[in-house]
Amino acid sequence: MKKEDLKFHIRMRMYYEEKNFGPGVASLMTLVKEKGSLSAATREMGMAYSKAWKIIKKAEEDLGFSLMEGQSGGSCGGKTILTKEGEEFLEKYTKFIKEVQAFAEERFELIF
Amino acid sequence: MKKEDLKFHIRMRMYYEEKNFGPGVASLMTLVKEKGSLSAATREMGMAYSKAWKIIKKAEEDLGFSLMEGQSGGSCGGKTILTKEGEEFLEKYTKFIKEVQAFAEERFELIF
Repeated sequence: MKKEDLKFHIRMRMYYEEKNFGPGVASLMTLVKEKGSLSAATREMGMAYSKAWKIIKKAEEDLGFSLMEGQSGGSCGGKTILTKEGEEFLEKYTKFIKEVQAFAEERFELIF
Repeated sequence: MKKEDLKFHIRMRMYYEEKNFGPGVASLMTLVKEKGSLSAATREMGMAYSKAWKIIKKAEEDLGFSLMEGQSGGSCGGKTILTKEGEEFLEKYTKFIKEVQAFAEERFELIF
């Protein structure tokens, strides 16, 4: 294995008490925003709808606000949108992880 | 929950093909360096010796070099030391994660 093939991976979680909001929920939210449907988002990610529902609920519980609304269509495909708070939080998280990732890439080249 | 209680958590993994080297192996190595024994390190972390052995072997397999040596004492408490390559790698990882963490703390304050 050549040294230049070494890679790093950052997983960022945001939380109050339980580390429930992470890359999985963020990806679901990004896809919901794009596709307007949670079931379409889960299909795209190859994630079971029940699992998606569970990780979203756990993240919402910890954060104290709803991330998306109108999911009642379930696997039949109801329209889903991000809440205002959810959209703002996702934007901040995306910006945060992007900046951290870019900084890490720079430092990685120098350290390893 | 007050907004100022929001926290973030970064998990950093280093790898070629399988993301096996992360905070668990790094903590074990740090403790091995301190205590001179893998069994003492696992006791300190409350991790089963067999689990520690397994995650170290998996990380070594991916990285292509040994991280520690002299573990043959097993749970009876043989002396363990980090290999030269292991020690260098741990130092780089520790420096890397420290810098990324410090940068993230700064950005976190500004973004959230």
